[in-house]
Amino acid sequence: MKITLSTGQTLESTSGTSILASLKEAGIFLTSSCGGKGVCGKCKVIVTSGDADSKSKMKLSREEIGQGYVLACTAFPSGDLLIDIPKESILTVEGKVVTGRSKDLLALLQSTGATIDPLSERFIMQLPAATLDDNISDLERLKRELMARGLGCLRVPFRFLTNLAQTMRKENWQITLSTIHTDECYEIINIFAGDQKAPRYGVALDIGTTTVVLYLVDLTSGELVDVASTYNSQIRFGDDVITRIVHATEHKELNNIHRAVISDVNDLLSLVVSNHDLNSDAIDCFVIAGNTTMTQLFLGLDPTTIREDPYIPTANIFPLAYAGELGIRSHRSTPIYSFPCVASYVGGDIVAGVLATRLHEKEEISIFIDIGTNGEIVIGNSEWLMSAACSAGPCFEGSGIKHGMRATDGAIEDVLIDPESKDVQIKVIGDNVPPAGICGSGMIDAVAGMFLAGILDQKGKLQEDVSDRVRRGEDGLEFVVHSSDGRDIVLTEPDIENLIRAKAAIYAGFATLLHEVGFTFDDVQKVYIAGGFGKFLDIEKAITLGMLPEMPKGKFEYMGNTSIVGSYLCLLSRKMRSEAEDISQKMTYLELSVSNSFMDEYMSGLFIPHTNMEAFPGVKAMMKK
Amino acid sequence: MKITLSTGQTLESTSGTSILASLKEAGIFLTSSCGGKGVCGKCKVIVTSGDADSKSKMKLSREEIGQGYVLACTAFPSGDLLIDIPKESILTVEGKVVTGRSKDLLALLQSTGATIDPLSERFIMQLPAATLDDNISDLERLKRELMARGLGCLRVPFRFLTNLAQTMRKENWQITLSTIHTDECYEIINIFAGDQKAPRYGVALDIGTTTVVLYLVDLTSGELVDVASTYNSQIRFGDDVITRIVHATEHKELNNIHRAVISDVNDLLSLVVSNHDLNSDAIDCFVIAGNTTMTQLFLGLDPTTIREDPYIPTANIFPLAYAGELGIRSHRSTPIYSFPCVASYVGGDIVAGVLATRLHEKEEISIFIDIGTNGEIVIGNSEWLMSAACSAGPCFEGSGIKHGMRATDGAIEDVLIDPESKDVQIKVIGDNVPPAGICGSGMIDAVAGMFLAGILDQKGKLQEDVSDRVRRGEDGLEFVVHSSDGRDIVLTEPDIENLIRAKAAIYAGFATLLHEVGFTFDDVQKVYIAGGFGKFLDIEKAITLGMLPEMPKGKFEYMGNTSIVGSYLCLLSRKMRSEAEDISQKMTYLELSVSNSFMDEYMSGLFIPHTNMEAFPGVKAMMKK
Repeated sequence: MKITLSTGQTLESTSGTSILASLKEAGIFLTSSCGGKGVCGKCKVIVTSGDADSKSKMKLSREEIGQGYVLACTAFPSGDLLIDIPKESILTVEGKVVTGRSKDLLALLQSTGATIDPLSERFIMQLPAATLDDNISDLERLKRELMARGLGCLRVPFRFLTNLAQTMRKENWQITLSTIHTDECYEIINIFAGDQKAPRYGVALDIGTTTVVLYLVDLTSGELVDVASTYNSQIRFGDDVITRIVHATEHKELNNIHRAVISDVNDLLSLVVSNHDLNSDAIDCFVIAGNTTMTQLFLGLDPTTIREDPYIPTANIFPLAYAGELGIRSHRSTPIYSFPCVASYVGGDIVAGVLATRLHEKEEISIFIDIGTNGEIVIGNSEWLMSAACSAGPCFEGSGIKHGMRATDGAIEDVLIDPESKDVQIKVIGDNVPPAGICGSGMIDAVAGMFLAGILDQKGKLQEDVSDRVRRGEDGLEFVVHSSDGRDIVLTEPDIENLIRAKAAIYAGFATLLHEVGFTFDDVQKVYIAGGFGKFLDIEKAITLGMLPEMPKGKFEYMGNTSIVGSYLCLLSRKMRSEAEDISQKMTYLELSVSNSFMDEYMSGLFIPHTNMEAFPGVKAMMKK
Repeated sequence: MKITLSTGQTLESTSGTSILASLKEAGIFLTSSCGGKGVCGKCKVIVTSGDADSKSKMKLSREEIGQGYVLACTAFPSGDLLIDIPKESILTVEGKVVTGRSKDLLALLQSTGATIDPLSERFIMQLPAATLDDNISDLERLKRELMARGLGCLRVPFRFLTNLAQTMRKENWQITLSTIHTDECYEIINIFAGDQKAPRYGVALDIGTTTVVLYLVDLTSGELVDVASTYNSQIRFGDDVITRIVHATEHKELNNIHRAVISDVNDLLSLVVSNHDLNSDAIDCFVIAGNTTMTQLFLGLDPTTIREDPYIPTANIFPLAYAGELGIRSHRSTPIYSFPCVASYVGGDIVAGVLATRLHEKEEISIFIDIGTNGEIVIGNSEWLMSAACSAGPCFEGSGIKHGMRATDGAIEDVLIDPESKDVQIKVIGDNVPPAGICGSGMIDAVAGMFLAGILDQKGKLQEDVSDRVRRGEDGLEFVVHSSDGRDIVLTEPDIENLIRAKAAIYAGFATLLHEVGFTFDDVQKVYIAGGFGKFLDIEKAITLGMLPEMPKGKFEYMGNTSIVGSYLCLLSRKMRSEAEDISQKMTYLELSVSNSFMDEYMSGLFIPHTNMEAFPGVKAMMKK
């Protein structure tokens, strides 16, 4: 049977294959934050003609069902179908990267004193042709030339001998070597006939528990060429790392969990590769940053011991892996550098964050916090670094929130609620894109705004009589953030409870760690905030919510996704890779889960802004107003 | 359908599967020097009940056909069969190695000043258990322990991380590391839980053009534990290296040719592994020696450029390969060390031979000659080494000779012909084994004996009226070496022509190379002879034949298969591996194929003993007698 899209494109399908799978087969990737379980409601398509057997209607409104909406992951065609894919369901690459972002990244790299010196290096070599008088073997000829050029030793993995003779002769003894430099020696990762110096690209990856972000980078200029991101489809094995480890350990699903994220990376890779008409040989190397569990699952390493006392990861500094070993769709010898980790619950994403903020170079004491699915905090300076993890949950990335979504086109990223009139103004990411959901920064704005407008009480309960935007929905009370054509975007009371638990964990982490090292918030000169909230995080509102401590606003700096920035830096610079390894070795780790004071702090944080109002004098004053 | 053996063993078969293949499937390997083409006649079996469709009857006598003999490679069962396998058809391991041989090898190793220091090394480590206070990652724990023991750096290929956590904990933090030492660093090739120090074995291989020999060696004691050998089944792609290169190049059969020899090695490996009840993890490393083409084909490297001017091999010093890369049935990470080669036509087998004779250490000028399928000659001393190759052909290994066979049980290795009575006495390899064929040393004895008895003239023609053992057979005149029960062993006139061409090429090689370096036979203090002739080579008879120069008998030393001896030495000693690489670098190569004087010498050698009788005064005197 056939599925025809409103664009006219036709694809083959069978009754046993979901619409989502058929689309994927044809290279059309939909957003699917639950990994295809039929629960997140993000892979909606509209069946405009024909019948599909729709196994789940979760997150679909009555109106949508009436209009023919189905969830592509759990809808199976009963015959030929004509379908329409709403824009917000399609996973896309950004295509044209905002020039500013690429410039900022390059400027950051240059500010560290590093030059462009990527993980992989290419050499073009014109070898002298073999003759009866100069009849050394092909491999010796290659090594002799490297020696003559002062490049030193060359390690040639056995598999490259297979076609060496042909490759060397194909373009009249001109070849291009793609190499990596390890252990004081170059190692071949690919050999091409002729001059293949350019184009060459590298891929930086942030493997988040909730989100996977890919940067396609020009290794010659350092330019950020494209960005793509998607949900980590491991989500179908659980929202957080612990549930996934349990699945890997107790349900023997390690291999499936590993393949889920590899498949996500391959999807993103397909998108950028086809978007720029590259062949896969154009990609020379990968750098990945993720928390320790994500790194191990990406690499296919059993994470069991991460969860069991005494919480030991398999490695903190990883040997290079090769694309072929992991099933990444690139040349099998393309090297994959994994960011060094610190401990079971402070991983490579945090090392990447410190690297990006340069906290490890400064004399003053700074805090770095990465609010992703977990919430890791680093405090320190150029002398010492101390870290901890507090389990914040993935709600700021849109997961577990009814209309939550990542900070991409269509996300409400800014919400302004007038305390008097209770009017709501929103700002949506993208040019003229209708709102499709709400991202982390929007949620913080909305909840802080509702609180100051009296729509929400200190315990996080909605007040029915204050605003007519509060109504009773299927999950209890909910606040309508945006309403149009019957497709409302709401925050429900369970959503808000989720957010309060998350912000309480984050604040408790700050407080506990600071207390452990014997400092107070006054000693901290700078707070770097990373996370997937959106382009901007309203610091004042995050303080109002009690997520951030009340400190002078100028001390805060919102950095966005620092994991991908660190990954970008290491992709391009040997100096950065060496710094990353130093950071991972130098950082100590404090286990908060065994700390009583952390639990106390957490319980105190389950109010807006906090049980201890003395710590939030400014918010207290505003409340009075 | 079923095949039942006279031993009672029953195996399943189908009409489309040859008896040879069904036997192989069941772990019963037959000799098959033509690689299953139905032409060598060595895989005979007797069908005692039932019918088989026999596609080739080559090399089967009328009597044999009457008795039910078929060639297993081209016989296909039409129904259930009862078969009997003659002992000489079965490929066997020696099982119990003559103690003397193992002692001789060990003595040779010790005489070089080398200690037992195998390619691979195992360490047993009791690691401290991980605790909350000592919570570094598993990999760092391992590396820390190696550092603490002063063993230095450890390279851990990524794939070993996959099960590291489990392996380390399985036997209470005791593990055994199997490693190789390369580039000043240990590299892991296997990790076991608990104490797996012993047993551990290595495999030395001689990959000959005609014959593959395997030594199973105890890496702890250096003891030779078992020996197995078979024909190289690449023979079905041609008898000599050139024909095989043509097949690889022009018929795109490289992969099939590669797999043929890998399959031979796997057959031999199966035999020794089952013979000693080993599991495949007990084998830690392989060393292979072969000529350059055999080495490249074993490694799966395109040999095209070896045959084309300017005759360039892909490599002379090879990176380590791993069993998994080549399809060798052992742990996938088991390293395979390939002997360094010198040039396209002087390979690792010759370097191994020099290493075994110690020629490269001596002040006096010596000659080393390896008479296998090709015939390579080295002349030199501790200062210089010069080599050349003369195409002698595989007849001394039994190939291309009607009743030729390798020097194994059942081979006639010694033939004495009384010049007066023309009576013939033979000696057969093995205890009370009936003669099954004739090996290289037997052929030389027989031809020299026939010549001195006047049964053969100087041009190699049989004289019908001199002995009643000369008769007319299907290939023309033939000499009956042994007769019993209608299964005669003969040397035919085409066999003898083959032998004369081979000996002429060898002598021409000697003479040309010596002339090139400006020496005469008188300057040579020692001639080391290697090859697969049999246990003993009668020097006097080889001189009579004109294969060896007439020199004092004491200057000759017959060494047997030096390629496998060199392979054994390198398997056990780092010093030997280093010497082998030095020899390969130091040796220069002379291309005889472009030399006019070689062709002249060759033509002069097509007589017994030689056209120039002045070079053979002793033989001349004997002829007069």
